Amino acid sequence: MTIESLRLETERFVANTPKSKRLQEEASEYLPGGSSRGTAFFAPYPTFVDHGEGLHVYDVDGNRYLDFMINATSLVLGHAHPDIVSVLQEQAARGTAFSGPTEAQIRLAKILCDRVPSVDTIRFTNSGTEGTMMAIRAARAYTGRHKIAKIEGGYHGAHEYVSVSVYPPADKLDPNETTPIPEYSGQPPSVAEDVFVLPFNDLETSERVLRENKDEIGCVIMEPIVSHFGYLPANLDYLKGMRKITEELDMVLIFDEVQSFRLAAGGAQEAFGVIPDMTTFGKIIGGGMAVGAFGGRRDIMDQFDPTQPGAIAHAGTFNANPMTMMAGEVVMNHLTAEVFDGMNALGEMLRQKLRAVFDELEVEAQVTGIGSMFGIHFTADEIMDYRDVVHSDHTMMKAVFTGLLNEGVLLQTACHGALSALTTEAEIDELVDAIRRVVQRVR
Amino acid sequence: MTIESLRLETERFVANTPKSKRLQEEASEYLPGGSSRGTAFFAPYPTFVDHGEGLHVYDVDGNRYLDFMINATSLVLGHAHPDIVSVLQEQAARGTAFSGPTEAQIRLAKILCDRVPSVDTIRFTNSGTEGTMMAIRAARAYTGRHKIAKIEGGYHGAHEYVSVSVYPPADKLDPNETTPIPEYSGQPPSVAEDVFVLPFNDLETSERVLRENKDEIGCVIMEPIVSHFGYLPANLDYLKGMRKITEELDMVLIFDEVQSFRLAAGGAQEAFGVIPDMTTFGKIIGGGMAVGAFGGRRDIMDQFDPTQPGAIAHAGTFNANPMTMMAGEVVMNHLTAEVFDGMNALGEMLRQKLRAVFDELEVEAQVTGIGSMFGIHFTADEIMDYRDVVHSDHTMMKAVFTGLLNEGVLLQTACHGALSALTTEAEIDELVDAIRRVVQRVR
Repeated sequence: MTIESLRLETERFVANTPKSKRLQEEASEYLPGGSSRGTAFFAPYPTFVDHGEGLHVYDVDGNRYLDFMINATSLVLGHAHPDIVSVLQEQAARGTAFSGPTEAQIRLAKILCDRVPSVDTIRFTNSGTEGTMMAIRAARAYTGRHKIAKIEGGYHGAHEYVSVSVYPPADKLDPNETTPIPEYSGQPPSVAEDVFVLPFNDLETSERVLRENKDEIGCVIMEPIVSHFGYLPANLDYLKGMRKITEELDMVLIFDEVQSFRLAAGGAQEAFGVIPDMTTFGKIIGGGMAVGAFGGRRDIMDQFDPTQPGAIAHAGTFNANPMTMMAGEVVMNHLTAEVFDGMNALGEMLRQKLRAVFDELEVEAQVTGIGSMFGIHFTADEIMDYRDVVHSDHTMMKAVFTGLLNEGVLLQTACHGALSALTTEAEIDELVDAIRRVVQRVR
Repeated sequence: MTIESLRLETERFVANTPKSKRLQEEASEYLPGGSSRGTAFFAPYPTFVDHGEGLHVYDVDGNRYLDFMINATSLVLGHAHPDIVSVLQEQAARGTAFSGPTEAQIRLAKILCDRVPSVDTIRFTNSGTEGTMMAIRAARAYTGRHKIAKIEGGYHGAHEYVSVSVYPPADKLDPNETTPIPEYSGQPPSVAEDVFVLPFNDLETSERVLRENKDEIGCVIMEPIVSHFGYLPANLDYLKGMRKITEELDMVLIFDEVQSFRLAAGGAQEAFGVIPDMTTFGKIIGGGMAVGAFGGRRDIMDQFDPTQPGAIAHAGTFNANPMTMMAGEVVMNHLTAEVFDGMNALGEMLRQKLRAVFDELEVEAQVTGIGSMFGIHFTADEIMDYRDVVHSDHTMMKAVFTGLLNEGVLLQTACHGALSALTTEAEIDELVDAIRRVVQRVR
């Protein structure tokens, strides 16, 4: 029945988007599947974007969407914020990227170092992928131990050593333990051997794995708020336990705050009071421009100091380019304590209203999230880890995602989303009402 | 004597750049060594850039530099080209990055597919690093063989499997063979085992290594024009031989054209008539914005087609963002056959004039390069491979680089550089005259 609903919603979507359909066909001649980015694709084809404005994105067919995808949480000031437009327009006229550093990178670095407890010094990259890659490199060099540990279902970008057990299919999961499952065919077998996979929120097992392999594991990388699980925060005990055990075993604890940094001025680490050794960034810190970063304890980061012999090289043609730095600075200056409080309160309101709708409609659904981030899962079981996520009803998820498009609301394809600093209660209600209508149609 | 010259040039540089010196001190509080990018650092500290304009870059102390660094070859239309400024200003006002695709990415993809012989389809990334990483992933999945081969001294970005024998120190080189030498402490030992290192331009040895390991090696990645060696083109016989042997052994041949793509409309592969299976891009294709790409044969690239089950995931929040796509399109449209011919002829003129100056001054120097790319090496021996580069006079190189800064000319720190479409004979002469003055001072 949900499959039939999905078919109907898809039919309606296709009827609304003839120009996107044509562009997808054209794109498929030059890009495999017409796509250059997994996250920007959904079946039967994604809407091609014409422009964005504040809370909304407009597709090439003239459809308007209330945007909770906001480029995977990155557009925390919405689309084309006037202050960002203004600095980008000015900077473009002064040059977009140079062979030398600029003052802007000092300013953004200072803001991040001042705000984030774990970050004494920082370096910028072009993506979150590059940020986590360099953080892991730093940890390996610092500890002399090359193996790493990550959470089952945790996403940390595209590089090899985090491409393990990110989206393991349900039928490959060992019911008794979290084994490393390569994401791609052709991966070097050593990658799976060099990566330990930990069960989220299961401190006893995680601690046992780390302790048993303490001479080999150099770092643990994890999101304090797991984006793949619908922005599910770690239990505080788990987080504190992971901090304690990594400290005891001299492992570098890396918090991937590419997404969770939008929780508070100092990120999730500040909000939870658990301070890692290193932190990685992306998304909001570039103001809508390509960005990533990694930072941490001065002694670990000093390995990259080019004035020292034997420093780890870290090049990157567009690292810390002034377009990104200027836009990022605008965002950081907008994100005052009041703005965080406002976004987070609205997020909490949204989660409550969503739960009330699902109760009212007697739909088996879970609402996860914290602060301005939220996730919807169609399952009767509380979401505690990756296995709960993978076992939820994906057809219903897809039907709701597509139904919301037809209602003029854009979520992430997994029915996750985030608010921006522009969001008000009116948009919360618009989303909640749209979900009510869609669920009534598709269930 | 050269060391004393370097000291004097450095003293003069410091006297000219008090504000950069202060900014470097400030930057060092928040960034290790004050730097976020290896290529943008040099001792005692880099000049902090205020803005760029056409052929010139201006530092915060008001010094003007004739720029042959042009952000590591990427600014092929110079700084702040009016047509790029204009599209960036327009696009910024329409939004910088969306959760969906845009028409601009189809247009840039089409241009690249139409121009580059090996590229049936393409995908965009945020850096050349990400481009080579994904190309290698594609080759591994396609062949089912996870080991790779690369050239000794070849640079292909920052990820793990190309961080082998990039800058191996002279004292670590085995005089009898090109062994894999890890770039960083803490690298997984398997990385060195999974990477074979080939001697550049030595077809017999390269072929033997590939043949002996044919069941394990899935791809060969190489620059047809090696940037590290001062843009030294491969011997045509070597390139053709590598194409023949990889075809015979069913290995994917990847040309890293991140830099060499500026040789011709279809890249070095078109100019040399040697067509690889896959090609990676960066630098000029983003018009000064963060960019990378990988493309190739349709059957290999189809592994990323998200409409197919089991497709290789390739996400990236800022992949193919419209700012980059629009700026890249402007560049491609400017780069007509006439523009390539003009840049390449000027490059040839520059190399000849440089050789004449070094002859005139009786300095032991080699001038490498092809098309609009050039390299200067202080050595009596012809540059044929990495070992010739590493054994050249690096103190003289540093003295000349610093001396040129004092003359208002910016090269890459290794005394390499590139022309832009704006360069005329006047700038060629300005560079040659500056080098004459500097060499007379520092030798």
